[in-house]
Amino acid sequence: VSLLIVGSIGIDDILTPAGSARNTLGGSASYAAVAASFLSPVRLVGIVGSDFPRRFLNLFRRRGIDLLGLEIVPGARTFRWTGRYHENFSSRETVEIHLNVFEAFNPRLPAAYASSPYVFLANISPRLQLSVLDQVRSPRFVAADTMDLWIRTDPSRVRALIRRVDLILMNDEEAVLFTGERNLVAAGRALLSAGARAAVIKKGAHGALLFPGPGMPLFQVPAVPLARVVDPTGAGDSFAGAFMGHLASRRSTAPPALRSAMAMGSVMASFTVEDFSLGKLARQSSAALRRRHRGYLGTFRL
Amino acid sequence: VSLLIVGSIGIDDILTPAGSARNTLGGSASYAAVAASFLSPVRLVGIVGSDFPRRFLNLFRRRGIDLLGLEIVPGARTFRWTGRYHENFSSRETVEIHLNVFEAFNPRLPAAYASSPYVFLANISPRLQLSVLDQVRSPRFVAADTMDLWIRTDPSRVRALIRRVDLILMNDEEAVLFTGERNLVAAGRALLSAGARAAVIKKGAHGALLFPGPGMPLFQVPAVPLARVVDPTGAGDSFAGAFMGHLASRRSTAPPALRSAMAMGSVMASFTVEDFSLGKLARQSSAALRRRHRGYLGTFRL
Repeated sequence: VSLLIVGSIGIDDILTPAGSARNTLGGSASYAAVAASFLSPVRLVGIVGSDFPRRFLNLFRRRGIDLLGLEIVPGARTFRWTGRYHENFSSRETVEIHLNVFEAFNPRLPAAYASSPYVFLANISPRLQLSVLDQVRSPRFVAADTMDLWIRTDPSRVRALIRRVDLILMNDEEAVLFTGERNLVAAGRALLSAGARAAVIKKGAHGALLFPGPGMPLFQVPAVPLARVVDPTGAGDSFAGAFMGHLASRRSTAPPALRSAMAMGSVMASFTVEDFSLGKLARQSSAALRRRHRGYLGTFRL
Repeated sequence: VSLLIVGSIGIDDILTPAGSARNTLGGSASYAAVAASFLSPVRLVGIVGSDFPRRFLNLFRRRGIDLLGLEIVPGARTFRWTGRYHENFSSRETVEIHLNVFEAFNPRLPAAYASSPYVFLANISPRLQLSVLDQVRSPRFVAADTMDLWIRTDPSRVRALIRRVDLILMNDEEAVLFTGERNLVAAGRALLSAGARAAVIKKGAHGALLFPGPGMPLFQVPAVPLARVVDPTGAGDSFAGAFMGHLASRRSTAPPALRSAMAMGSVMASFTVEDFSLGKLARQSSAALRRRHRGYLGTFRL
């Protein structure tokens, strides 16, 4: 069944210890949509300018992504981000950011999208995420991602968001920042105490933790072990998109589906970090995905 | 069957973000021996002074550890270490170290120990580890641990050690330091290229990686998720001791035994970090161990 994804779409310049890339496809919704597209039908809602390269539109189309909700603003420029990663990918800085067309973004769902059963609110401002929530009709499962910027600048809306969705995803640093708990198990529990029905804390190369709900035992996956990382950008977005795509494809949000969604998220994220942008993930075959998925499960099956 | 453990035994003063403890039982062999004692018969080889508290000897005895190889030097003082952990346990410094009786340590195995089928060379100088290797007769499986100090000061002996044992264990920082590879999958492969038959890289709160041999797929375990850590000292030693105790108890070093040894190591290490010294681990019941082991496996079983 269909998965609605709303978030940022942009053009990135990226410098990492492994190299650099200019004018690549970026944005939380781009990564999430492409990752999910291997698993379920995807409806993408976002905004770009008329400078948005046709090859990026074609990439979305090749992945079968429904672009009815993609707003292309004539004469406007697409959101741009320049980022740099430091030694061993341990930290990153935003070198430049130009909101451009994003500044006036006010997502309006096409009528057909309002009844999407699965909804992923990829990283955009919590104000916009809440406005999308107001437009969907009784979705089966809504997940939201966020980032440190919103936790710092608009914490009350992040708190409101958390209470309105079925699952909140954060990375480790964001979870620590939001909860004040430096221990991630404590941080996950604090997210549940803050009203999250369920929470995922993404730990990058160290895997991810799932807190399925108050009083329920946590679940964890290690990451897909990789000997070489090229660009971590979008790993968390790919994880989340694949997680939601998996739930939509299984039409289940029961604990076994949530657990296998954690594994699927890890697999998709692993392709993302092996190249800049969606260079590697977008061109995978289903056979390649299945092969890596099987190999990955073998790395932690007793 | 019997597991021979050789390493350091000492008295620690420890300061962590969670508190402090003075005059506690420390040393790589102490942690390894107590962790292994829940799984197999343990023979402990080490050296202490006559100031070594009787209560520590009694702790070893209560755990059924064979102390025939424990040298107590009259009039000499026991090895002492003072350590301090910084914010969120991310780094530690040695505040004071007194080798004392350790300075003249030259391990001599009791005759009965020479044919021990399983041998763990816990962290001491590689010179002493190699001298123990010269004294054992055709052991079935030998594992060795080491530390950054020896990698910096005596790398050639560490290299020699790695080629002579069946398994080398290092933590993540040591593996990066020794191999020059910042990526841990690459570091593990580099350990195999350096002649290790198998390697384990311990990642603390992020679990551990097993490289079972050249060309064999790696195996990984997440750590036991804990909401509160008190003192990480000895976690790696407990992991290694439990790992070896598990192999000895199963009388197997085949891949399935190595994999379940990774899980057993994680369980024992988790008790260690929940209190100072062996305060929590040493007083566990087998029922408590089994309960945590079962719960832990559930955290990453799909």
